Amino acid sequence: MINMDCKILDCTIRDGGLVNNWDFSVDFVRDLYYSLSECGVEYMEIGYKNSPKLLKGADAGPWRFLDEAFMREVFPQKTNTKLSALVDIGRVDENDILPREESMLDLIRVACYIKDVDKGVELVEKFHALGYETTLNIMALSNALENEVTEALQYVGQSNVDVVYVVDSYGSMVPKDVAYMTEKFKRALPNKLLGIHTHNNMQLAFANTLVGIEGGITFLDSSVYGMGRAAGNCTTELLLANLRNPKYEIRPLLGFLEKHMVPMREKWEWGYNIPYMLTGNLNEHPRSAMALRASENKDKYLDYYDRLTTPETAFGGNG
Amino acid sequence: MINMDCKILDCTIRDGGLVNNWDFSVDFVRDLYYSLSECGVEYMEIGYKNSPKLLKGADAGPWRFLDEAFMREVFPQKTNTKLSALVDIGRVDENDILPREESMLDLIRVACYIKDVDKGVELVEKFHALGYETTLNIMALSNALENEVTEALQYVGQSNVDVVYVVDSYGSMVPKDVAYMTEKFKRALPNKLLGIHTHNNMQLAFANTLVGIEGGITFLDSSVYGMGRAAGNCTTELLLANLRNPKYEIRPLLGFLEKHMVPMREKWEWGYNIPYMLTGNLNEHPRSAMALRASENKDKYLDYYDRLTTPETAFGGNG
Repeated sequence: MINMDCKILDCTIRDGGLVNNWDFSVDFVRDLYYSLSECGVEYMEIGYKNSPKLLKGADAGPWRFLDEAFMREVFPQKTNTKLSALVDIGRVDENDILPREESMLDLIRVACYIKDVDKGVELVEKFHALGYETTLNIMALSNALENEVTEALQYVGQSNVDVVYVVDSYGSMVPKDVAYMTEKFKRALPNKLLGIHTHNNMQLAFANTLVGIEGGITFLDSSVYGMGRAAGNCTTELLLANLRNPKYEIRPLLGFLEKHMVPMREKWEWGYNIPYMLTGNLNEHPRSAMALRASENKDKYLDYYDRLTTPETAFGGNG
Repeated sequence: MINMDCKILDCTIRDGGLVNNWDFSVDFVRDLYYSLSECGVEYMEIGYKNSPKLLKGADAGPWRFLDEAFMREVFPQKTNTKLSALVDIGRVDENDILPREESMLDLIRVACYIKDVDKGVELVEKFHALGYETTLNIMALSNALENEVTEALQYVGQSNVDVVYVVDSYGSMVPKDVAYMTEKFKRALPNKLLGIHTHNNMQLAFANTLVGIEGGITFLDSSVYGMGRAAGNCTTELLLANLRNPKYEIRPLLGFLEKHMVPMREKWEWGYNIPYMLTGNLNEHPRSAMALRASENKDKYLDYYDRLTTPETAFGGNG
C-alpha cells in the first residue's frame, strides 16, 4: 500500500510489557531502538510514565514507571526515532513530567475510556503546554454508545491534542467496524491527525490497520512480532514490509527478531489462540482469557466458553 | 457479517496433511467430521484422490490417496456435511473414480495452475459427467499475468464447473488484491459460483476471506486452527464465530480443538512466522521457508532474507 504520510509507532515495550511485566533488559530495549531507527520507524513507545506512588506494581521493570535519569542511561544517543510514553488517567503525577526540552520524551500519549475523556483532555493540555506532542487514545470504543462517542469527539476536537486514536482494545472489531469508526472520527475531527491501535484476537490487527490507512489514518501502532497484551498487536514487521514507502526497511529488524524475539516468545505467550479469539468475538476484555491461559486449565476451551456465555456464571467483564 | 449464502469447506485434512504428511488418525478425522457436522459446516475435504501409481509418497497417510473402502470404514454414517477430495492435474487415475452414487464423495475439486486450465477443465468435465459437484481451483493467481487470467476465465466460463476458486497460494495477496480479483472473476463468470482459498503468511487469511464474501464469493475454504501448509489457512473457528448465520455454531468445535488440535500443534508447526511472512511478502512459494524451518537454521532470518533477495543466490522459486 503506497502512502507517504504514515508514521509507525512501535509499542513493543509498552504493550508487550503487559505480557512480561516489563521484564525487558536494557540491551533489549536499546537494540530495539537502534534497529527501529535503521528501519525508519518514526516513534518508539518505551513504557508508561505512571507514578509508582499512584499505582501498585513496584516489582515491575523500570519501563512501567519511566524515569528521566534512567532513560538517559539507556539511550546515550537519540536518533530520528522519537520517544513516547503512555500515561493513564489518575495514575500520573504531573510533577514528574519535565518540560519537553529537558526530557528524553517527545510524545506523551494519554489513554482513557470514553467516560473519562474530560480528564484525558485536561492531561493532554498540560503536556501540550509543556511542549510535548500529544495523543489521546480512546480505549474500548467497541463498548461505547454511539452518542457517547459523538459527544466525546466534539469535545476532543476543541482541544490542542495532535492525534486522536481509534483503539480496538478487545480485538473485537472487524474491518467494516474500523471503516465506520475511522469515517466517524474523520468527520468529527477534520483538523486532527488520526491514529489506530489494534489487537489480534481475530487475526485482524494488520488488516484493520490497512483499513484505517485507507480511511485516512496516519499514526499506526504496532509491536515487533505482535508482542502485546493477550492476542497482541499489528506486527511492526508487516507494516515495514507492506507499506510501500522508501523510508521503511525491514532488513534491520530481522537481526533483532532472531536475537531477541525468538527467546522472548519461548519464555512468554502472546498471540492468537482460542480463548482470546472468543473474548474478541464476544467483545469482552481478555482478562478472563488471560487468567485461563495462566492456569492449568489453559486449553479447556469448551468449559471456558460455557462459563463465558452463561449469564449466571459469566466472569462479569462487561456483562 | 450477515450472509445467508455462504458455505464453509473445511480442508484441515487435505491442506493440513501438507504439514504432517497426512498423519491423521481415523479417530481424529472421524471426530472432526461429526464436530463439523454439528457446527453446520457444509463440506469437509478429507484428502487427495490422487493415484499412488502417479505420485511418489507411499509413506504418506491414507488421506493422500483416498480409497472408497477406507472412506466407508471411517465414516459409518454420513451427515449433512458433504465430503470432498482434491485432485491434481496429471496425478489422478480416472479409472479410480466411481460414479457419484457409488462413492462416499460428493464434490471433487481440481487444482491447477493457470497454464493447465485446459487440462483442469477436461478433468472437471469427466467428474461432472460422473455426477459429482465440481470446483476448479486456479492456484498461484498472484503470479499469473492479467491477460492469462482473462483468457483462462473465458474458457472456464464455458465449462460445466460449479464453483471457480480464487486461490492465494503464496499468502501474498492483500485485501485490495482480493477485492480486485474477486471483481474480475465475478464479471468473467456471471453464471458460476465463486470460492476463495487463502493462506495466512501476512495474517490476512481471514480478512481476505471477508473481502471475498463482500465481493460475492460464497464458497469459503478454512481449516481448524488454520492447520495448513506453511502459514496455514483462514481458520474454521473464525468463520463459525463471525458469519452471523443461525446455521453455524462454534461450540461443537471447541471440544475437538482441545482434544485434538492442542497435541497436534505441539507436534507440528504451522502458522505465521517470519520466514513465511517474507515469502508471502515477496510473492514466492513458501518451499524455501519450509526447508529453513525444518533445518537447524530455522530462526536465522537475516541470512535467509539476504539469500532470498540477492539474485545470484536466490532459491530460484519464481526468480
